[in-house]
Amino acid sequence: MKIVIAPDSFKESLTALEVAQAIQIGFARVFPNADYQLVPMADGGEGSVQSLIDATKGSLQKISVKAPLANQVEATFGFSGDKQTAFIEMAAASGLHLVPFEQRNPLITTSFGTGELIKAALDLGVKKILLGIGGSATNDGGVGMLQALGLKFLDNQGNEIPAGGAALSQIARIDLSEMDARLNSVEFEVACDVDNPLCGERGASAVFGPQKGATAEMVKTLDRALAHFADKVKTQLGIEIIDKAGAGAAGGMGGGLLLLPNVQLRSGVQIIIEATRLTEKVRDANLVITGEGRMDAQSIAGKTPIGVARTAKSFDKPVIAIVGSLRDDYPVVYQHGIDAVFPIIRQLRSLEETLKLGHENLISTAENVARLWKMAQFA
Amino acid sequence: MKIVIAPDSFKESLTALEVAQAIQIGFARVFPNADYQLVPMADGGEGSVQSLIDATKGSLQKISVKAPLANQVEATFGFSGDKQTAFIEMAAASGLHLVPFEQRNPLITTSFGTGELIKAALDLGVKKILLGIGGSATNDGGVGMLQALGLKFLDNQGNEIPAGGAALSQIARIDLSEMDARLNSVEFEVACDVDNPLCGERGASAVFGPQKGATAEMVKTLDRALAHFADKVKTQLGIEIIDKAGAGAAGGMGGGLLLLPNVQLRSGVQIIIEATRLTEKVRDANLVITGEGRMDAQSIAGKTPIGVARTAKSFDKPVIAIVGSLRDDYPVVYQHGIDAVFPIIRQLRSLEETLKLGHENLISTAENVARLWKMAQFA
Repeated sequence: MKIVIAPDSFKESLTALEVAQAIQIGFARVFPNADYQLVPMADGGEGSVQSLIDATKGSLQKISVKAPLANQVEATFGFSGDKQTAFIEMAAASGLHLVPFEQRNPLITTSFGTGELIKAALDLGVKKILLGIGGSATNDGGVGMLQALGLKFLDNQGNEIPAGGAALSQIARIDLSEMDARLNSVEFEVACDVDNPLCGERGASAVFGPQKGATAEMVKTLDRALAHFADKVKTQLGIEIIDKAGAGAAGGMGGGLLLLPNVQLRSGVQIIIEATRLTEKVRDANLVITGEGRMDAQSIAGKTPIGVARTAKSFDKPVIAIVGSLRDDYPVVYQHGIDAVFPIIRQLRSLEETLKLGHENLISTAENVARLWKMAQFA
Repeated sequence: MKIVIAPDSFKESLTALEVAQAIQIGFARVFPNADYQLVPMADGGEGSVQSLIDATKGSLQKISVKAPLANQVEATFGFSGDKQTAFIEMAAASGLHLVPFEQRNPLITTSFGTGELIKAALDLGVKKILLGIGGSATNDGGVGMLQALGLKFLDNQGNEIPAGGAALSQIARIDLSEMDARLNSVEFEVACDVDNPLCGERGASAVFGPQKGATAEMVKTLDRALAHFADKVKTQLGIEIIDKAGAGAAGGMGGGLLLLPNVQLRSGVQIIIEATRLTEKVRDANLVITGEGRMDAQSIAGKTPIGVARTAKSFDKPVIAIVGSLRDDYPVVYQHGIDAVFPIIRQLRSLEETLKLGHENLISTAENVARLWKMAQFA
């Protein structure tokens, strides 16, 4: 019997690898001789780098980069065991968590550090970069990131514009001549799970600006600045970014990345599924087990377990989810490939205690699922 | 497919019948055409009468009886649909919950009301009485109950002794001549899940006295009084009760009942299993589902699900438990016939909310168990 165990992480409790290992321990109590394939997954967001490293036997590298307020921070990125692919999370260099609450101000925060991470990956000679762009503190259209890679955004005096979302309104000319030439031979896949356009009511500034510290007035300023940026990109480079689905992700980072060659905005889960070669692993499985910290109706919108379930269902495989908790609106997951779902909570305790018991509860739930599975097969 | 659903109640939340119905609803979403046999169970304690009525399509009757402090209360007992069997819980007439905390005093509390319930059952013409004796407020050796049935306990003046555990020490003579003659033709089964003797360190007074309000001094008085009672029973009636296993149950009620003809002290679960005809229902089942509010290592000591599991295992049937919560020490149940166990909690909420969601969570857990069962059968 071949069992593929492909869960997401349980946020605040266990990495995807730890979840997969616990499920294996529980199952192996009942099926000690099964062939277990552990495929730690992620959704392109927080924790994805770790999952990809775990899945590809890769490593981490740490470098010093510019944080959103231009102070230096240590930021980590990963690369695969074969060093062909880099795994970068924008949040590592440009995340909201790097800016103290009272200093959050997307008028001035920059995505420069993310560009430095990309540069470091190019230095390693990778052929492909998987970039997750959630959780940023910035609203600068990815211009900071582009500046770190050699693109120049000049004002009408010919000076480089300063950092931050507000300064985009000063762009007079975009100069690609000093762009890092290695970008021409690297392929970018950007994990992007929102389809917001760059500007307007559903744009980056209006939808995501407030959570980054923007007031209503700042939202207007930022939206106008991004529109000005998009206009210059269109007139000078012939690239349409303002209405592109996903351009509004991560403060316009989705749009800014489109200035680079070979960039694809894709579903985060799909990227992870390919990077982990889930499809070929599932092909000859007898059973696929997935999971996540909390399953609910939202899970069908691009979260890991549903991506795993759809992949498994393309080969008609049974899919079980083992989850930290289960919201009342969960049953819609049955229509998206999850055959049965089991929450791991055994008793009412504090959240802290419950998170601490995650590993043990996962093992025990997996054991009971395996017991039921075995029993039903022989009934 | 025949599925027997034989759970205990979920205390403070759902009766055994409600639990069984919820499990059926969830299972029927997956197996709408299965043959479901609902067998609401109990362990001889609280809620047993309701379960037995539910299982035998019986009814309830309410009468006015003497509470432990001799005030009148309304007490309920049940009888089977065929009126052959009465179901009595001692606690209904003589329970600790009938005595306000500050008035608890086993020196004076009486089991008289339980005798009145037995008399009412005799009036109905039943052939058998199932009597559960948990939760009493009394330590009177069942003498109050016996008095209600016509037995006389006289002091050395020839007067009847007063109510309560302390007065047993005044017994000089026991007179059976006016005992209700119908007791000769009725069979008593007493649900008795403790094996404590009447007196001594493990006796009724020492072990159960304190929770009924006895001080250390009172425990000594009560223990001596029960020993005196046992001595009179032995010398005058030739019945040995002092060391009998179970005689110490319910303040010596287990011992007192042995003065009646045709009384058997038995395991509560075994009585319920017979009353519900579980054994014959399980014989041709494909799957047996049981459950209880909380499963833990204690569950193996005479609680319902283990009784159900043992019955099912005598025919080698698969047994699944669906439970309100699951304590860390639960895995020992695997050695007692439970093949797999699933707690129903889906999220951390308050106890109150969780109890309120019991019905819904049971349905959803049962559905997922059924989904897994079906999937495994076709895998």
